[in-house]
Amino acid sequence: MAGRIEARLKKLGIVLPNPPNPAGNYVPAVRAGHILFVSAQGPIVDGKPAYQGKIGRDISVEDGNAAGRIAGLNTLARVKQALDGDLDRVKGVFKVVGFMNILPGFTQMPRVLDGASDLFVQVFGDRAKHARAAIGIAALPQNLAIAVDATFAVE
Amino acid sequence: MAGRIEARLKKLGIVLPNPPNPAGNYVPAVRAGHILFVSAQGPIVDGKPAYQGKIGRDISVEDGNAAGRIAGLNTLARVKQALDGDLDRVKGVFKVVGFMNILPGFTQMPRVLDGASDLFVQVFGDRAKHARAAIGIAALPQNLAIAVDATFAVE
Amino acid sequence: MAGRIEARLKKLGIVLPNPPNPAGNYVPAVRAGHILFVSAQGPIVDGKPAYQGKIGRDISVEDGNAAGRIAGLNTLARVKQALDGDLDRVKGVFKVVGFMNILPGFTQMPRVLDGASDLFVQVFGDRAKHARAAIGIAALPQNLAIAVDATFAVE
Repeated sequence: MAGRIEARLKKLGIVLPNPPNPAGNYVPAVRAGHILFVSAQGPIVDGKPAYQGKIGRDISVEDGNAAGRIAGLNTLARVKQALDGDLDRVKGVFKVVGFMNILPGFTQMPRVLDGASDLFVQVFGDRAKHARAAIGIAALPQNLAIAVDATFAVE
Repeated sequence: MAGRIEARLKKLGIVLPNPPNPAGNYVPAVRAGHILFVSAQGPIVDGKPAYQGKIGRDISVEDGNAAGRIAGLNTLARVKQALDGDLDRVKGVFKVVGFMNILPGFTQMPRVLDGASDLFVQVFGDRAKHARAAIGIAALPQNLAIAVDATFAVE
Repeated sequence: MAGRIEARLKKLGIVLPNPPNPAGNYVPAVRAGHILFVSAQGPIVDGKPAYQGKIGRDISVEDGNAAGRIAGLNTLARVKQALDGDLDRVKGVFKVVGFMNILPGFTQMPRVLDGASDLFVQVFGDRAKHARAAIGIAALPQNLAIAVDATFAVE
């Protein structure tokens, strides 16, 4: 039986990806009561990096936003996996920290990270509005353009 | 009726600012039971960046410490907002992550971040002593000098 | 009376260090119910930085992994301290964020951070498998090579 959020994903034309395997000795998500800690996710599609390099130099801010959305989709795939496939058990999003691969002087992190934030609100509605931090960093694994590090509220 | 912490703020000569509006699709703070996740706050005064650029190059370590204090004040304003104006409901501070805009080689992050940490302890006393991480990063939104990312304990 | 985890440490030949003093106005760890927020720990031995500089330039990836393990040992020392010496009260690890001191272009963060992740799993078993984020940053206090920022599950 498809749930309410699955129906919403279908209506939005969103197909959740098969999330990539962890690249080290860690797991996709760990639960602490009603808090779900999710491993940082990048813009990986079919196991391969879709957006690499520095936002603002190698890829545009708009592409950075698209990369943020893909990182968000991978995050949702992880959350679904951790909830035995039932996204209706998501009650909200507590926090999103976005680490963006940039050069010093870049300032458009909020627009880039909205790629993930907008996705979460689109899928779950206002209860997905979250606290956030948007940080420009020097490098990420696989030279990814962004890593989205989220903490979800779950039943 | 002014609370105990409001009286303490007055005694310390501290006036909490009107916190800046979120720069993207997120909210100032989200509560998870007794944990309050607060969005990262910068040294913004009256809606404008007060300290921009790289600490150790564009601004001094002492000014960086002052920037950390302002980011802490904006954090407290967010916490107050999330607690319907009642700072007496703060039970402590769990964690502070400080992201500081620096050049490679800079090492004085602890002194800078103490601007926020000292403020929290000054206002709430020893129960505000928190776990911490002090990180030097490449860039922040609005070219801010520091972002303070805090998690509070609330009633 | 030595506990189960202490016996395991002995069997593994692991001696937990005396953790370094906080470098600012903060504390080693703060508890929120079953969540223990631990201050970020670096590769410090006997109060002195053991690995400094940029991984991939000043020190090798393998040495970075060793640095991650030492940061993990200091983390365990902090956790033990916060649990009145009883590591048997550790139920798992929720999250590990690794901030690695690198140059743009470096991508081997997962291998480096496994130094800490492997240690936690070695000591506590599979219940220590955690969510994770591996981030390359520009600088750390004392020019440390890595900072491990962990959140533990405790009784």
